[in-house]
Amino acid sequence: MNLNEAIGRLNDAERDLLAYSHAMGVLSVDGDTVAPKNSAEGRAQTMSVLSGFYHEIITDPALREACGIILAAPEVDRVTRRRAEERKEESDDFFITPKDEYMAYEALVQEAGAVWHEAKGKSDWEAFRPYLEKIVDFNRRYAARKDASKAAYDVLLDNYEKGCSMAALDPFFADLREKLTPLIAAVGQKPQPDTSFITGRFPVEKQRIFSDKLMALMGINRDDCAIGETEHPFTDSNNKHDVRITTHYHEEDPTMSMYSVIHEGGHALYELGVGDELQGTCLEGGSSTGIHESQSRFYENIIGRSLPFCEALLPLMRDCFLQMRDVTAEQLWRAVNKAQPSLIRTEADELTYSMHVMIRYELEKAMMSGELAVQDVPGEWNRMYKTYLGIDVPDHRRGVLQDSHWSFGGIGYFPGYALGNAYGAQMLRAMERDIDVWGPVGRGDLSQVTAWLREHVHRHGRLLLPAEILRSAVGGPFDPSCYTDYLTKKYSEIYGL
Amino acid sequence: MNLNEAIGRLNDAERDLLAYSHAMGVLSVDGDTVAPKNSAEGRAQTMSVLSGFYHEIITDPALREACGIILAAPEVDRVTRRRAEERKEESDDFFITPKDEYMAYEALVQEAGAVWHEAKGKSDWEAFRPYLEKIVDFNRRYAARKDASKAAYDVLLDNYEKGCSMAALDPFFADLREKLTPLIAAVGQKPQPDTSFITGRFPVEKQRIFSDKLMALMGINRDDCAIGETEHPFTDSNNKHDVRITTHYHEEDPTMSMYSVIHEGGHALYELGVGDELQGTCLEGGSSTGIHESQSRFYENIIGRSLPFCEALLPLMRDCFLQMRDVTAEQLWRAVNKAQPSLIRTEADELTYSMHVMIRYELEKAMMSGELAVQDVPGEWNRMYKTYLGIDVPDHRRGVLQDSHWSFGGIGYFPGYALGNAYGAQMLRAMERDIDVWGPVGRGDLSQVTAWLREHVHRHGRLLLPAEILRSAVGGPFDPSCYTDYLTKKYSEIYGL
Repeated sequence: MNLNEAIGRLNDAERDLLAYSHAMGVLSVDGDTVAPKNSAEGRAQTMSVLSGFYHEIITDPALREACGIILAAPEVDRVTRRRAEERKEESDDFFITPKDEYMAYEALVQEAGAVWHEAKGKSDWEAFRPYLEKIVDFNRRYAARKDASKAAYDVLLDNYEKGCSMAALDPFFADLREKLTPLIAAVGQKPQPDTSFITGRFPVEKQRIFSDKLMALMGINRDDCAIGETEHPFTDSNNKHDVRITTHYHEEDPTMSMYSVIHEGGHALYELGVGDELQGTCLEGGSSTGIHESQSRFYENIIGRSLPFCEALLPLMRDCFLQMRDVTAEQLWRAVNKAQPSLIRTEADELTYSMHVMIRYELEKAMMSGELAVQDVPGEWNRMYKTYLGIDVPDHRRGVLQDSHWSFGGIGYFPGYALGNAYGAQMLRAMERDIDVWGPVGRGDLSQVTAWLREHVHRHGRLLLPAEILRSAVGGPFDPSCYTDYLTKKYSEIYGL
Repeated sequence: MNLNEAIGRLNDAERDLLAYSHAMGVLSVDGDTVAPKNSAEGRAQTMSVLSGFYHEIITDPALREACGIILAAPEVDRVTRRRAEERKEESDDFFITPKDEYMAYEALVQEAGAVWHEAKGKSDWEAFRPYLEKIVDFNRRYAARKDASKAAYDVLLDNYEKGCSMAALDPFFADLREKLTPLIAAVGQKPQPDTSFITGRFPVEKQRIFSDKLMALMGINRDDCAIGETEHPFTDSNNKHDVRITTHYHEEDPTMSMYSVIHEGGHALYELGVGDELQGTCLEGGSSTGIHESQSRFYENIIGRSLPFCEALLPLMRDCFLQMRDVTAEQLWRAVNKAQPSLIRTEADELTYSMHVMIRYELEKAMMSGELAVQDVPGEWNRMYKTYLGIDVPDHRRGVLQDSHWSFGGIGYFPGYALGNAYGAQMLRAMERDIDVWGPVGRGDLSQVTAWLREHVHRHGRLLLPAEILRSAVGGPFDPSCYTDYLTKKYSEIYGL
């Protein structure tokens, strides 16, 4: 095989692999949104079959040879080289799990997703426990095969965030615990802002119209990005002209869906902003979960919960919700920044959010090392919520069963949320050096913020590793102190500490 | 390969083929319902790739050999034999089109679908014409390869309705023309019923609630069947626990969506009622388009537009639409049976509907024989609407571009709609001999109607051919006079002829 043949082989394989990813992505979104309940079994069967074909293509010796040839050729352009690197790594990853075992695991997580959903509704931990045991078991075996010299959890962390490990995360979360615990306590001593005007009856029909306005405000092209409704909002991207976000409307509080739309809209803008030269390749997508979350949470919190953005929001909200006609931007800003320890991660305020993540990180670490048996996870979950957030977990629905991640095998995903918060705070510092952030935002013009992020983050897709993206954006290495400084300053101002 | 190995081979191939069909079905429904506009190109690429893999599996020599072995073994059970027969025939069908050409055609119809949608909106025939030319061209070549001894259109007709041909359809449509033309003219001389109470403002939110009630009335299990919204309503089934119907709400007239839901609900009941022993095989689905349409149009018209059903409907309608509180069942019945020549097939009344189909049949016949060039289709379309329905077509949007079928290559599909009407009228006659149809329907109990259809039609899936289904249901051969008799009797009563 010469170099041209190798590139041809990579192109052919990639075209096929992307078709399978696309089909499986749409099947999955369909299952989460509009499919009838009893469709789960048939979908699990189909996903298992398709994943088997995917396994065959990605582990094809000819593709592996082609990637090797490309990587050994110094004259290859950097996009092709990086594609070969990614596909070679993915191939190695699939290679260590036999096809039958992989197909069985795919069927398992499909089934586990349906079981988790039902178990959560009934607060029934015991129904979900055997699935989580099998999933943990598979992931420990997988990690041992992939790199027996590393701790199993480090193998998983590196998959979600290249270069990430417990050695890096332990001090990061320790620092968060140390700085945020007293800050949360201090805020708890202060009177809470008035939130009465975002409580009441906000018809879902009006909220749907408001979502359209929000997406327009964010500059999202609706011909490239659709919005749907699910219990748990998410973003899924098939390519830069086919992105889906979802939200969940709560009739009694319009800000819940509002921040879901802004959060998922941030993910969407990342996918929509990937460079055209990466289209139709495995580099068309985000660099890592941490970088992806940095974008969603940047729009949601750093922009979305700022006073200038509240000024821009207010006229749109007043148009849709009559009861808000006398509210001021400052009142809205205080209300959407109300901070207090709570049970549900996805509904947590910006201040306490990373503590939810820290708890999951510690639990995953202990599960993966074998120190914590799956059956003991709920007890440990409840203990940590009491210790770190001072609250009692009343049931598993609002406790250990609240998140879907473990059901789809996403162990190692959570830390990305906290890293994303910290990356975002560091990006803000750099952005404020480069451009006038808040003037245009206050006028409802997000184009310059988005252009900055597009230039430094979005356009690179997966061409750059997370650390390279961060360096491109902030001009230096990761500095988590930006994040704790940002929170300290923001909440001191709001709560008058 | 021995018989057991052959059956194993068929089972393996079928598992894979069904996974691809499932994925392509969901991609297609997604494209028609919630996908953003610009996703069309990526979806066409994915469909083309997946159809290539499908082609590989269905034309695999080992599968063809396995089918041959099964068909030669007298001891094989009839389900397995019929599966082998169906798959062998499908394989032969794919075999005559090389994989690359088939993939290109798949990409063409995907693109044609998007082009048609846009062209229809703009009434722009010239934008769609080149696509239809290519589609007609492909189908003529395909038919010549499949059976050069038959007319091209006969090959296509037989694909949709096994045993169907122009020799059978010509006298059928001639009879319809002869009997319905004077009936339509006579109705046109009579005063029209009052329809004011189904004209006005019927909020979509209320209509959505009404759809739920309708589906419950029809006995459709929502855990197996979801409802969505599209411009053109349709039914899609992945398996008997994963069926989707769609509707389109018109705020000014609730009966348009109502009859879409009942029509698509009829298709859905067919798919939901297939025998369990056919699950996970190619026999899980309808026998033909004609038999499928017989079920949808049976519920829509024969049941749905009957006086007893209007009695059952009225309380549900009154619950949702206050303006209907003083309407009587007879008034409703007369209103929903208002008949007059119109432009749009899908909105046509029961009396004139088959004339729309007849026109398409004649055009397809002439296109496929080469007698009518694609560029001359609009002129011929308009001429026939004037001749047979007496109306002028104001633009292509409401004329030749109104239906999607040609864009997806569905030439030969239309006659099934008229056959379905005629099959249904014949089934009614048999059903009335067997059970009390109208008493329970008037009380809102459709269970006996559905049980009869399930016993004679639904449970057989594709195990029986269309003529066998009809014989199972009515105890004899096709008799189209039932249909013209039914229409004559019904419309004479309504219009006092």
